[in-house]
Amino acid sequence: MTSPSTPADMANALRALSMDAVQRANSGHPGAPMGMAEMAVALWSRHLRHDPSDPHWPDRDRFVLSNGHASMLLYALLHLTGYDLSIDDLKAFRQLGSRTPGHPEVGHTPGVETTTGPLGQGLTNAVGFALAEKLLAHEFNRPGHAIVDHHTYVFHGDGCLMEGISQEAISLAGVWQLNKLVALYDDNGISIDGPVQGWFADDTAARFRACGWDVIGPIDGHDVALVDTALARARISAQRPTLIICKTRIGQGSPNRADTAKAHGEPLGAAEIALTRAAIGWAHAPFEIPDAVRLAWDARENGQAAHRGWQQRFAAYRAAHPALAAEFERRVLQRALPADFAETVAETLVRFGQSTEHVASRKASQKVLAQLAPRIPELLGGSADLTGSNLTDFPGCGAVTGGHVEGRHIHYGVREFGMAAVMNGLALHGGFIPYGGTFLTFSDYSRNALRMAALMKQRVLHVFTHDSIGLGEDGPTHQPVEHAASLRLIPNLDVWRPCDEAETAVAWVHALSQADRPSALLLSRQNLPAQPRTPAQVLEIRRGGYVLSDRAQAQAVLLATGSEVGMAVAAQQRLDALGVPVRVVSIPSTTVFDRQDAAWRRTVLGTGLPRIGVEAGVSRWWGQYGCVAALGVDRFGESGPAAAVFAHVGLTVEALVELVQQTLAAEAA
Amino acid sequence: MTSPSTPADMANALRALSMDAVQRANSGHPGAPMGMAEMAVALWSRHLRHDPSDPHWPDRDRFVLSNGHASMLLYALLHLTGYDLSIDDLKAFRQLGSRTPGHPEVGHTPGVETTTGPLGQGLTNAVGFALAEKLLAHEFNRPGHAIVDHHTYVFHGDGCLMEGISQEAISLAGVWQLNKLVALYDDNGISIDGPVQGWFADDTAARFRACGWDVIGPIDGHDVALVDTALARARISAQRPTLIICKTRIGQGSPNRADTAKAHGEPLGAAEIALTRAAIGWAHAPFEIPDAVRLAWDARENGQAAHRGWQQRFAAYRAAHPALAAEFERRVLQRALPADFAETVAETLVRFGQSTEHVASRKASQKVLAQLAPRIPELLGGSADLTGSNLTDFPGCGAVTGGHVEGRHIHYGVREFGMAAVMNGLALHGGFIPYGGTFLTFSDYSRNALRMAALMKQRVLHVFTHDSIGLGEDGPTHQPVEHAASLRLIPNLDVWRPCDEAETAVAWVHALSQADRPSALLLSRQNLPAQPRTPAQVLEIRRGGYVLSDRAQAQAVLLATGSEVGMAVAAQQRLDALGVPVRVVSIPSTTVFDRQDAAWRRTVLGTGLPRIGVEAGVSRWWGQYGCVAALGVDRFGESGPAAAVFAHVGLTVEALVELVQQTLAAEAA
Repeated sequence: MTSPSTPADMANALRALSMDAVQRANSGHPGAPMGMAEMAVALWSRHLRHDPSDPHWPDRDRFVLSNGHASMLLYALLHLTGYDLSIDDLKAFRQLGSRTPGHPEVGHTPGVETTTGPLGQGLTNAVGFALAEKLLAHEFNRPGHAIVDHHTYVFHGDGCLMEGISQEAISLAGVWQLNKLVALYDDNGISIDGPVQGWFADDTAARFRACGWDVIGPIDGHDVALVDTALARARISAQRPTLIICKTRIGQGSPNRADTAKAHGEPLGAAEIALTRAAIGWAHAPFEIPDAVRLAWDARENGQAAHRGWQQRFAAYRAAHPALAAEFERRVLQRALPADFAETVAETLVRFGQSTEHVASRKASQKVLAQLAPRIPELLGGSADLTGSNLTDFPGCGAVTGGHVEGRHIHYGVREFGMAAVMNGLALHGGFIPYGGTFLTFSDYSRNALRMAALMKQRVLHVFTHDSIGLGEDGPTHQPVEHAASLRLIPNLDVWRPCDEAETAVAWVHALSQADRPSALLLSRQNLPAQPRTPAQVLEIRRGGYVLSDRAQAQAVLLATGSEVGMAVAAQQRLDALGVPVRVVSIPSTTVFDRQDAAWRRTVLGTGLPRIGVEAGVSRWWGQYGCVAALGVDRFGESGPAAAVFAHVGLTVEALVELVQQTLAAEAA
Repeated sequence: MTSPSTPADMANALRALSMDAVQRANSGHPGAPMGMAEMAVALWSRHLRHDPSDPHWPDRDRFVLSNGHASMLLYALLHLTGYDLSIDDLKAFRQLGSRTPGHPEVGHTPGVETTTGPLGQGLTNAVGFALAEKLLAHEFNRPGHAIVDHHTYVFHGDGCLMEGISQEAISLAGVWQLNKLVALYDDNGISIDGPVQGWFADDTAARFRACGWDVIGPIDGHDVALVDTALARARISAQRPTLIICKTRIGQGSPNRADTAKAHGEPLGAAEIALTRAAIGWAHAPFEIPDAVRLAWDARENGQAAHRGWQQRFAAYRAAHPALAAEFERRVLQRALPADFAETVAETLVRFGQSTEHVASRKASQKVLAQLAPRIPELLGGSADLTGSNLTDFPGCGAVTGGHVEGRHIHYGVREFGMAAVMNGLALHGGFIPYGGTFLTFSDYSRNALRMAALMKQRVLHVFTHDSIGLGEDGPTHQPVEHAASLRLIPNLDVWRPCDEAETAVAWVHALSQADRPSALLLSRQNLPAQPRTPAQVLEIRRGGYVLSDRAQAQAVLLATGSEVGMAVAAQQRLDALGVPVRVVSIPSTTVFDRQDAAWRRTVLGTGLPRIGVEAGVSRWWGQYGCVAALGVDRFGESGPAAAVFAHVGLTVEALVELVQQTLAAEAA
């Protein structure tokens, strides 16, 4: 019989595993895990409600490690509490193909809730988790049936708080009154460049209070009892999110590295590790954990009991509210689209496939939304303070604003990056398919969160309106030029730039159908002509690229997207009159088109004919489709009415006709 | 003789010009200018020290309109105070080619200090202006000679404060103790989606105080005397930046639109304008300004007097400190590189052009910096808390940290976007060539500020290290894949990805020599082999692309950048052994290469030979160089040692050799 384990032993187990795994990998960040060890003991052994045997139990508490470089802390916790993560997995830390990569990756390691590393975003994902919980609780709980009732906990360091996105996150958490969100700040006073006071002197407690948070501390983050007490207090907050400021020492336990930037991002080294073992009284070999410590950490029994309790509550709920329970299971457990989604798609295509209305694609998007949203209750919209411009709202959508949670459209305020990272959290949590709008140019602000959605394979939809110089008078700061091409470069992100209502409708249903990737819809401010299509062509839109208008003996192929499809069709007609037949290919989604089989792509693009691209954006990008010429905008835009700007930069039907003629002449020469 | 003008008249002149110009353009934002009219009267007629006859006077106060959509306020002020901006210019508001575009554009309209519109960045530019003033004052002022002594004023709204970058800005302004920075907050409680309390409930005063600011107010922003008093108090702050919270009504004066989101972004309409004229007692026709009001606004005489006073002080300074004065004139007035810059370039090429050291290009960059920085005193470095990784510091650079301003290297903290926008402000102010470092992946965070630097034609250098999967163990969140290709899409941004010390040296001197564009240097974490070159080849690097290693009867051309140049050369050697001679082209900067004459590009790329690209990033991008095949990374990376990750994704010499053989076989078939 071993002696019972103390909180200090439990913390030192985390400390030892972290420093040893980093040492073995000869790479990684020991300082933060060692500094947060007692915080982790308090949270993970006394408060966090989770079931290591089932990481997907929907009412588990969520834990986010926003300072993702402290990944070894999380891996040690998952291992010790009983997740399917072995000591061999820890030994393979940071090795290719291991389950313990350098930063935590959701979908890769059981128990990891979100991928973190790019600082500030984990905290913002956590706001999304907590918002999802609040919205689902409001929607599904019934008197006597609290089937959605969990907390979101997040660890973060000063790096997250220096990043601007943290302000967007804490401001939103405050205004939404996310009382079940608890953030623990690892306040160690050290960042990579050294002691932070020379570049980070914020009064963090005052800053959070200013944003509607309760703040506890600073407390001694190495005192498990104090952190425990703070967590107990935080959990009963009725209206405000809580920040617990934990004063810690980075690399705590290491005699020579603690409290220094040297502890942050490199192994301690064998000698210092030996000194640390002696200092903390940890006599065990690397990766050796005494049984008593293992026993103290093991969370499986408690976790299963809590989980079973919830299952019983859910069974009672199902008995009382069978329809609601089925819907909850569909949305949150199975993450399945509505059973009639195929029918919804069919109806949508019927309704919009042959539309002859000349509307802006942002307006077409709103019409499609009005059709889809009532049938897909998990659709949760929003805008970064451009609702009336992005047209992301729909009839009866209501509004999530302040503490009001009845709605299905979120006013994110002017916070593009925050919106995108909150949406990632909503999608990860389950129960929602989030979408949000801003101007395409400002995808620059949110870009890394789009990348993270793509990396995490999350179904998040971005509605980017005002997608070109067609925005007009607001001028070059607001006119995207490089953005369409640039978004298409992000792996696993689908980008759509539809040319009319039919293509917009297909873009929406295609984006919704992609369970494992985000999509961006690039939509025009200006009206666009409806293109006539055969029923077969309507069905071809979903292939991302198709022949929109062909000609016998075509001499060239025009490839166009979005607002320039109408231009290409107009050019085709002029060229007809000049005796130069050309094919017009519409490519609303190059990313989808690229995934089609080679035969389809060859059929659409043709063989042996010169290809000419046209898009209101950087033109050289078309080279990858074998275009020998392209018309685009290889410069910043100008402030002026849209038509004048198009003419000024030379993006006109006349110019396109001329380019085709020149290209054919050059080919003939 | 007209009756003397009152502050109310002066404000109403701004109001009328704004609403009338927006109406005439049938586009724009009347609400913010109308709401900030009295704030503008107080600042521009009682405090702002400027000379409308010489917008470039170096010791002028700087004014930044961070809520750039309120551009008509600024144009009205510039017109009325006597800048070269006529009433006809105002009438051409938002028309193509006018001097009054939708958002203020620096370099386009006299008196506009920075281009604004993307929210939050103007405020951050202003922090850069104020930092430049503080650093220059420290460097150039001498007892009795305060030749650098001006304030930076910024107007901003709630939109700027919702954007996360504002937190980065105010945190830095506080820690740097920028006491000559005065921000006036147009606190009108309305954003585009409506009353802000549902999405913006921050206690802004508390938030700024938490970041080391003095806060005055809230005061009535429509009371010129109160704003005047607040400004007087702000100007004498000895240590802290000041926020003046001005409670205003958006669209003030408009009976039916004031205090509503309707006032924000569309013309009031003729009827409402008539009602507004009546309500504010402005009987004058559109664009008609009474002489008394013109007289009251005219700042030319006072401005010239202030300017003359400075010129006299500068003459005394020049007499006492001729060398310093000459240096000040070079750096701040002429914005010229040191007279011996050509010599510095030559010495740099001599020193590094034939280097045989195998070092990481980030390390090469640091060595080049150590050579350049002592000779180019305006070089002002920094890092977003990755100094030891980016290697942006140099011997004796010191550090700008907290209130300490002796150094030439800035600890920006973990604030990539803030760093980039502060650097834009430093460059715009004059006196510095700023550069700053972070990991390439986190260029996502700062992307729109890079775009703004490109749009504003500012010489700002970004040092982006850890430029590929070669980063290794930190994994996919930290491994750029799409970033090199994506940055190359931004118009007017030069992107360099050098392959060794020689190319790194050329990248630096080329970037420094570009007075009207920013540059990004993409540098490796891992060591790279030095490539042998003839002296002629060393000189060819500056053309962005050149033949690094040719073969007689070459059968193919390999195009490579950065860390893959060594791979291409190794492949060339293997292919030699296989009897397949190939040419290796190094393209350290595609953007520079693209600007070379067609003959050069043809000579380098060859004609009639299949081209194959190789770069550790998305591969389809190579299509624009006519590549028929490319080896790259068309997926997210993996956590693992760099060599293992390269092998895992198939980016190896062997794979390149095989691709060349396959390509030649396919061409032959």
